Amino acid sequence: MQNQRIVLDTRPQGAVSQDNFRLETLAVPGLEDGEVLVRNQYLSLDPYMRGRLDDRKSYADPQPLGEVMIGGTVGEVVESRADGFEAGDRVVGMGGWQHFAALKAAELRKVPTSLPASVFLGPAGMPGVTAWVGLNDIGAPKPNETVVVSSAAGAVGGVVGQLAKARGARAVGIAGGPDKCRYVTDTLGFDACVDYKAPDLAARFAEAVPDGVDVYFENVGGRLFELVLEHINPFARIPLCGWISSYDGQDIVPIRNLPRLLVMRAKLQGFIVAESPERWPPALQELTSMLAESRLHYAESVSQGLSSAPAAFIGMLHGTNFGKQLVKLE
Amino acid sequence: MQNQRIVLDTRPQGAVSQDNFRLETLAVPGLEDGEVLVRNQYLSLDPYMRGRLDDRKSYADPQPLGEVMIGGTVGEVVESRADGFEAGDRVVGMGGWQHFAALKAAELRKVPTSLPASVFLGPAGMPGVTAWVGLNDIGAPKPNETVVVSSAAGAVGGVVGQLAKARGARAVGIAGGPDKCRYVTDTLGFDACVDYKAPDLAARFAEAVPDGVDVYFENVGGRLFELVLEHINPFARIPLCGWISSYDGQDIVPIRNLPRLLVMRAKLQGFIVAESPERWPPALQELTSMLAESRLHYAESVSQGLSSAPAAFIGMLHGTNFGKQLVKLE
Repeated sequence: MQNQRIVLDTRPQGAVSQDNFRLETLAVPGLEDGEVLVRNQYLSLDPYMRGRLDDRKSYADPQPLGEVMIGGTVGEVVESRADGFEAGDRVVGMGGWQHFAALKAAELRKVPTSLPASVFLGPAGMPGVTAWVGLNDIGAPKPNETVVVSSAAGAVGGVVGQLAKARGARAVGIAGGPDKCRYVTDTLGFDACVDYKAPDLAARFAEAVPDGVDVYFENVGGRLFELVLEHINPFARIPLCGWISSYDGQDIVPIRNLPRLLVMRAKLQGFIVAESPERWPPALQELTSMLAESRLHYAESVSQGLSSAPAAFIGMLHGTNFGKQLVKLE
Repeated sequence: MQNQRIVLDTRPQGAVSQDNFRLETLAVPGLEDGEVLVRNQYLSLDPYMRGRLDDRKSYADPQPLGEVMIGGTVGEVVESRADGFEAGDRVVGMGGWQHFAALKAAELRKVPTSLPASVFLGPAGMPGVTAWVGLNDIGAPKPNETVVVSSAAGAVGGVVGQLAKARGARAVGIAGGPDKCRYVTDTLGFDACVDYKAPDLAARFAEAVPDGVDVYFENVGGRLFELVLEHINPFARIPLCGWISSYDGQDIVPIRNLPRLLVMRAKLQGFIVAESPERWPPALQELTSMLAESRLHYAESVSQGLSSAPAAFIGMLHGTNFGKQLVKLE
């Protein structure tokens, strides 16, 4: 049985291109005791992957050259040498950019088949838990406060706004283009959405937050960060989840109004959801309940086939996706 | 009996100058019920005052033109129409830039005569409590962690480092010039001090923090903020107390490496000590104990006479003071 996989061939100089990746065919890996062979059904593409492509120290080691690209997956167990797992089980894990993965059972999460498989890479997976942890543990919105989230049509941002509404707060999104903004308000139920690509951004944003900003869930950074900072209220909380505006080789926009944090006694805090393992169970409980009751909406951009992954990944870094970016592998 | 006072005459355009102030002579104010007449002995000059001179919204209202300049004072009660206060009591309050003040008893703090009067405007006053609250409640240093503080020879910074040492942490100061740095290490007992005015700052700072930075107590901002940010460790905490580098009309230096906060999952939080009234009693208890046992060292720059206050204030904004900047009024 053969396995196809995508490895990092070269590191990007500036923006990442499809040439940095290479598709390989080789044998399906054998299993050791405690391992499970999984056929990946969906691959998750996420902004954090861009940082791994560079050869510099960050919170995680760089993606090694010539090895399969890191990535979250949902799939089906085809063979098990681990207690508690058997063929046919649906599992979530770090299966990578490939069709088959031999994974340690201890690093897999069994998930039910009562929901579509892909949601475990989106609202009931890492992006959903990221939204939940950042909003609740750092943002801590109170009823009637204003919560702003950038990349509001994305996998994390969409959940942030819906959770904010569920807490009784006002949710304001920032997204690129009228279609995304319409989706954010009409489908996701945000109170307002501001198109950052349209003219007069500063004036339109000011109109959307007449009572100021109490929580800003930041996914984008750069000029949007500066803009929102001008409107924060005293004791504002800013969960710092991403800074995608400079992930792909762009210059980092210098921030000219950081003393606003002092004047407003605000808190800006970076976080990584993998470092809060104790928060996953309560987060997943609420998120899956909301999904089961159709109280949590989401969109997916699904790219077809493993070989489409590099292009889909590059598109996501530049905002061409709508909701969660996935690759369907079967 | 006559009173001399200094009022704000005009608002600064750019840097503040002595011409923005005016000395006035008028009658000593009369007392209403619940008020106390205080003869101010020392006036405290503090960086926050600069913000009040501008006519723009901040956490406090602007200093009104033609009214006595705001300022913390320690002095002696000369007449009382309030229960619990009598002539001869030593009190701390917001007496302003003047010799006599009629103050509400509820807004005064009676302090003992067992310590020099001026310490209640320094290590046992607002600056000391600022250091204590920011360091403990936001910085939360653990033993063997590295705590960095800018403006380390100043009234707040000096206390920060000594408290950090008392908590078992390593204390590294940043100060301007060799004399201040020598004072910070030799008198205050910091483990190291980096002179920001000398060449090769980046290399010398890196040498001073071989294990990175766990807590950065920020008083200065600008290029120093950027420099320290390059060295923060995972989960670093940055109490944001001041940004004096741009208080006096200087351009705000844009910050080019803010995503470091995300990579390092760090927290940056502004605070104002007046908003934590419940923390003053435990802070003052520890600080006065340390003073009484000679375990807390401090320096004072004392300017003589009310009319010297504007020049001393301007000097402090530009770092000419050594330790706490005071004006002796008698």
